[in-house]
Amino acid sequence: MPLSANNPDRRSWLDVPENSDFPIQNIPFGVFLTRDDIITIGTRIGDTAIDLGALHQLGYFQGIELTDDIFLQDSLNDFIADGRKTWRLVRNRISEIFMKDNPVLRDHEEHKTRVLFTMDEIEMQLPVDVGDYTDFYASKEHATNVGSLFRDPENALMPNWLHIPIGYHGRSSSIIPSGTSVRRPVGQTKPGDDGVPGFGPTKLLDFELEMAFITTASNDLGKRIPIDEAEDYIFGLVLFNDWSARDIQAWEYVPLGPFLGKNFASTISPWIVTLDALEPFRVAGPAQDPKPLPYLQQQGKKNFDIKLQAIIKPEGKQETVVCNSNFKYMYWSMAQQLAHHTVNGCNVRSGDMMGSGTISGPTKDSYGSMLELSWRGQNPVPLADGSSRKFIQDGDTVILRGYSQNDKIRIGFGDCSGKVLPARKL
Amino acid sequence: MPLSANNPDRRSWLDVPENSDFPIQNIPFGVFLTRDDIITIGTRIGDTAIDLGALHQLGYFQGIELTDDIFLQDSLNDFIADGRKTWRLVRNRISEIFMKDNPVLRDHEEHKTRVLFTMDEIEMQLPVDVGDYTDFYASKEHATNVGSLFRDPENALMPNWLHIPIGYHGRSSSIIPSGTSVRRPVGQTKPGDDGVPGFGPTKLLDFELEMAFITTASNDLGKRIPIDEAEDYIFGLVLFNDWSARDIQAWEYVPLGPFLGKNFASTISPWIVTLDALEPFRVAGPAQDPKPLPYLQQQGKKNFDIKLQAIIKPEGKQETVVCNSNFKYMYWSMAQQLAHHTVNGCNVRSGDMMGSGTISGPTKDSYGSMLELSWRGQNPVPLADGSSRKFIQDGDTVILRGYSQNDKIRIGFGDCSGKVLPARKL
Repeated sequence: MPLSANNPDRRSWLDVPENSDFPIQNIPFGVFLTRDDIITIGTRIGDTAIDLGALHQLGYFQGIELTDDIFLQDSLNDFIADGRKTWRLVRNRISEIFMKDNPVLRDHEEHKTRVLFTMDEIEMQLPVDVGDYTDFYASKEHATNVGSLFRDPENALMPNWLHIPIGYHGRSSSIIPSGTSVRRPVGQTKPGDDGVPGFGPTKLLDFELEMAFITTASNDLGKRIPIDEAEDYIFGLVLFNDWSARDIQAWEYVPLGPFLGKNFASTISPWIVTLDALEPFRVAGPAQDPKPLPYLQQQGKKNFDIKLQAIIKPEGKQETVVCNSNFKYMYWSMAQQLAHHTVNGCNVRSGDMMGSGTISGPTKDSYGSMLELSWRGQNPVPLADGSSRKFIQDGDTVILRGYSQNDKIRIGFGDCSGKVLPARKL
Repeated sequence: MPLSANNPDRRSWLDVPENSDFPIQNIPFGVFLTRDDIITIGTRIGDTAIDLGALHQLGYFQGIELTDDIFLQDSLNDFIADGRKTWRLVRNRISEIFMKDNPVLRDHEEHKTRVLFTMDEIEMQLPVDVGDYTDFYASKEHATNVGSLFRDPENALMPNWLHIPIGYHGRSSSIIPSGTSVRRPVGQTKPGDDGVPGFGPTKLLDFELEMAFITTASNDLGKRIPIDEAEDYIFGLVLFNDWSARDIQAWEYVPLGPFLGKNFASTISPWIVTLDALEPFRVAGPAQDPKPLPYLQQQGKKNFDIKLQAIIKPEGKQETVVCNSNFKYMYWSMAQQLAHHTVNGCNVRSGDMMGSGTISGPTKDSYGSMLELSWRGQNPVPLADGSSRKFIQDGDTVILRGYSQNDKIRIGFGDCSGKVLPARKL
């Protein structure tokens, strides 16, 4: 099916500010509350939110096989379960409705009143009901940095790392949409000289700059997804901040992995940008040596060029970009992650979320966490207001941003932001 | 509220075979498909399944605040979210309806036809839609055995183990009800001399004898559940077989924990036995030294005396009990697990499931996995048919059973069983 919505020369009759993340070539999907407190599925062009539930009721999706209430839901799970062909038909149709020369909605004032909202009239929600959330560890630079800091710089990568897209299960209940505050977590830390573990608010609160992809229902339990079909099961991506409490994590994580050091909150950007919209930004990934086992061998350009930033904004102060990274640095691709995740027969459902792990690049300003940027606190990171940070302080807002750009279009994700509140009283 | 349903002298007008797991003092909750292919929530007395959706429609729950469709659902999540007071009212009412001297339903043939089913007329389903599944590692004997086998017998327990109920996140999509077959998983294993990882069906397929508790919605994100309130948030328990592929697990699990070695399947018994029904079987847990931090200090009898068995049944052959353990051996109690899980503000939802980890006792015949029973294959376990097992073979059915018993009553869980199918073709 042609991806006509990707036509880079198309323009919308809706206003799209310069450098907007949301030109008519993006057409992401999200869930929002409208001014009338109705929850609906929508998309966004420029700074206009579009109510797809209302559009569907008004007949604009005629000819596409959709249930009547597919967009009148509090999550995208059912729509995502409809599969890639339906996503493409709907995205192409939305693009047609809003392209410059199409007068049908453009000139229908009453319909526009029902369908269009300014961004301050709506409140973004979680876009999916996440069944299972898995976090990978797929950036070689990040794994090397962490291995150097916590284990042995000479043998920073574990022996399995170059053979397996290492991943583990995370907590889905505490995934929250951008704009939700995060309370500094409390927990146990390594014992001091008296042998008694510490207890209190984390002193080493960190962000992790990640992306996450959202899957459609796919394999039955016991079957696997072959790597050359894996991308058919990926609906789209969001920015993902995997908040981490390094002192809690360090004390708890052997031998079963991170738990309370991670599961207090994970923030996502609320608009899911489809894999289709990112198609023009495919690039080759890093060379893989040794060659992966056959079930992980992928043809073609397996990575995506998405510029990524992490920003710290102290309360009442200006922003500082502390990290410039790129999704293309991922050693293991999304398709490799999904093929690996299901090779044992593990089933994947519509709305499942798979994080990339921290995305660090080769240079020091591209490291995707404070742990790496400050090298475990040895090199405080200077901020624009004159202060500096080893880790994240109360009142700080951490913002992730990401976009792909070529000479014609820019496809972005909007903000993935969360402000840190002080720990609750003990 | 009095637990009148626990009255040990009460008898039912329904037939209860000797040594049944389901006397009128049990009243577990489950979800089943009826002969008319209708899905409903039900309970069980003896070998009779009881349709609670039909009972409610017929007015038998009058006076209890319940929505009309609370039992006409494909999961118990909403009922569990109604909270402990409602669970108790409903369980007490069911007990009254079925006690020997109550003629209302007993003598109403038409109502009985609509409400009662023999076990072969129904098909048990998953009782809850599991949001998040967490697995703990709370048996000291199991942690010591595994530490001895994989690491150092002199320092078998990790330094954190006596301070933290160690846990990690598992996969909820692959939790299946008793009776569902399990396909032998395929995956990567440690490289041989050529440095290339192995790939193929696991050679070390294992069971893990566990129990799991199911929670109700509780704390908001950022708040915690204090230990003295933790049991209010536990609806009940099931038997839990955490199938494991030891060779896949051994290669993948450092540093982020088990993943594909575990997430291909976990089998649960389909009836949730309420914590209330197990109240008569409270016992003290093991002494805890060193004393846990204050947020983990629990008063009173914190464990439950539940006899547990693991059984292997080769295809077409008789059963062999290979393990006799007990839930009372748990070092960390369920309340301690839940208090720990939320101390950092992690939120818990209705229908979440928390596994105990393998429950091994102090003697060799009480070890809860083949890894420990055969001591990593060194001591094959003899079976009644004359064969022996180091690990689980294709065609074997693994059955977990569990019950509490005193001189008056026996409260059990029924079977948690799964047959192993050969790996799919590569």
